Amino acid sequence: MAKKILILPGDGIGPEIVAEARKVLDLVNEQFNLGLEMQEALVGGAAIDATGIPLPAETLEAAQAADAILLGAVGGPQWDTNPDFQIRPEKGLLGIRANLGLFGNLRPAILYPQLAHASTLKPEVVSGLDILIVRELTGGIYFGQPRGYRTKEGGVREGFNTYVYDENEIRRIGRVAFEAARARNKKLCSVDKANVLEVTVLWREVMNELSAEYPDVELSHMYVDNAAMQLVRAPKQFDVIVTGNMFGDILSDAAAMLTGSIGMLPSASLDANNKGMYEPCHGSAPDIAGQGIANPLATILSAAMMLRYSLGEGAAADKIEAAVSQVLDQGLRTGDIMSEGMQRVGTAEMGDAVVAAL
Amino acid sequence: MAKKILILPGDGIGPEIVAEARKVLDLVNEQFNLGLEMQEALVGGAAIDATGIPLPAETLEAAQAADAILLGAVGGPQWDTNPDFQIRPEKGLLGIRANLGLFGNLRPAILYPQLAHASTLKPEVVSGLDILIVRELTGGIYFGQPRGYRTKEGGVREGFNTYVYDENEIRRIGRVAFEAARARNKKLCSVDKANVLEVTVLWREVMNELSAEYPDVELSHMYVDNAAMQLVRAPKQFDVIVTGNMFGDILSDAAAMLTGSIGMLPSASLDANNKGMYEPCHGSAPDIAGQGIANPLATILSAAMMLRYSLGEGAAADKIEAAVSQVLDQGLRTGDIMSEGMQRVGTAEMGDAVVAAL
Ligand SMILES: CC(C)[C@H](C(=O)O)[C@@H](O)C(=O)O
Ligand SMILES: CC(C)[C@H](C(=O)O)[C@@H](O)C(=O)O
Repeated sequence: MAKKILILPGDGIGPEIVAEARKVLDLVNEQFNLGLEMQEALVGGAAIDATGIPLPAETLEAAQAADAILLGAVGGPQWDTNPDFQIRPEKGLLGIRANLGLFGNLRPAILYPQLAHASTLKPEVVSGLDILIVRELTGGIYFGQPRGYRTKEGGVREGFNTYVYDENEIRRIGRVAFEAARARNKKLCSVDKANVLEVTVLWREVMNELSAEYPDVELSHMYVDNAAMQLVRAPKQFDVIVTGNMFGDILSDAAAMLTGSIGMLPSASLDANNKGMYEPCHGSAPDIAGQGIANPLATILSAAMMLRYSLGEGAAADKIEAAVSQVLDQGLRTGDIMSEGMQRVGTAEMGDAVVAAL
Repeated sequence: MAKKILILPGDGIGPEIVAEARKVLDLVNEQFNLGLEMQEALVGGAAIDATGIPLPAETLEAAQAADAILLGAVGGPQWDTNPDFQIRPEKGLLGIRANLGLFGNLRPAILYPQLAHASTLKPEVVSGLDILIVRELTGGIYFGQPRGYRTKEGGVREGFNTYVYDENEIRRIGRVAFEAARARNKKLCSVDKANVLEVTVLWREVMNELSAEYPDVELSHMYVDNAAMQLVRAPKQFDVIVTGNMFGDILSDAAAMLTGSIGMLPSASLDANNKGMYEPCHGSAPDIAGQGIANPLATILSAAMMLRYSLGEGAAADKIEAAVSQVLDQGLRTGDIMSEGMQRVGTAEMGDAVVAAL
């Protein structure tokens, strides 16, 4: 039974890093006889340039038909100034998330022992760091209506967005987070701003209700400002963090950067049936695009995550992760994770090294 | 001409730290013949306990009549579960900000050389750190309407808030930030989420418009997720950051924690005429309240900021700041900034030491 993988290179370094993940996927496809059928499509700025819109119908259909999706990254300054807010690369990404109902975003922040020095934090603060951020991805202020731009009386411009969640949206992401915590160290911290925002009072309420179903998981609550602080102060206090779309965007990037090697971190965006889109935590890095120096490991690890979560191929995923660990042990480093005494390599060399290790 | 200072001890460690700042203010009042008249009032949980509401009319009137306000901190777990959202300590604080039009929140994140080791970040990343976060404080999602809780069709609970800014609100905080940058290193970074939120598209637009009036200040823009990351990766790239209420809440706490000594950081909340409320960046720390171990220095430095910004008494402010630096040089440390070889002191001893240094 063939499994359809949709590959979306996207913009900036996207095509370069995805090409390396593709090499890895092609090889394990053979080695494990996975029956993966790979197809590529356009999204983001690349789609705008080719078709005028960031999410062509063809791409959306292919995404809907696929068993899993691997994305590089979207966005770049050349599309940022488009006055039509709908014609931005990000809308392609947000459109896939929304249309496919990929509400469960898993963003691990793990410090690789080989890269411990890469963190800007002191070793004792981050060594052994292993946090999972569970971010709601299809609701909240990212998608809330009404939204827009208007001119008030007197010609004064005003912009507005709506931060809204209903209990069902909160409950389903809550379950993802409680389940994840159950499979890890059984500690879940729900992050909100319940001292100011009504929408997050409901968030906290529903998390408390759910907690009755997960007596083995210790639930705590933290205000988002304090969470941002605690991530810097003592990140190892966290096991799983669950939060809404906007706070999750901010905190997951901060958490990822604690490791100092955001070029290493994969992410998954899952629907209710574990169908998902997988992508590196980092962005499209337009400043280094086309130079062959981007780190492909986060994308390769995203492919591994895809095999594990959406395709049930844990053995192949394990093998890829072991291969990545091995190239790090060999001392190979792209520029972003380079340190003294190591061997600097480019994007393709790094991909080839993983392939060789496989 | 007497100047009226309203002192709001608030909750948790508030009364303890404010008492030390009061000692300092009383002394410089005499030394510099400042003619300060000090009055105290209730706010937050303390006001709820005494009067049933977090911002009694009497307190608001006193705040309106005052030339400047010094606040300890508000909030604590005993008031967090009140089902009536209006009867929360935070509403007292938000009520003063809104009623007095204190839209300009200045939050410096400065690393004291004497406390360089206190940071969880590596010395080379934070040494010499001196960032100013300018946060809009009376608009955005904190105050946007409509907001609340409703039950949708089918009995589904929903919570909602509105993130809204008009161009005038953005322009006036923008001016505060551009002026601040002009008086510092002339670099202003405006933080938004203009790739997703329409309200921040307007934010970016207005900042760009303003920039024409400040050709000597270099304006840049950054998405909030990236800003959270860059604060961890390379905080010294920033001079002044300007952002909205919610993002400012999160980023200013993260920035403060980079110094490792949030117990040292003051803040100012100013209206259009530089009347203001001054408070430490840290919260009410209910866990250590009443033990006499809280660090009063952020409150003492807030009093200094008050003298400088709202009362035009720069010389008295300088003297307080020098006294604080001197007690640090003497090796005195409260628990939060304690390190080997230093002398651990309590709240009152620290306050007394500053008084002695004056
Ligand atoms: C590109 C952008 C729309 C996106 C987001 O804000 O969700 C990105 O920052 C992310 O975190 O995946
Ligand atoms: C106490 C709370 C309402 C407040 C805020 O969110 O503004 C605090 O976190 C702050 O930053 O001053």
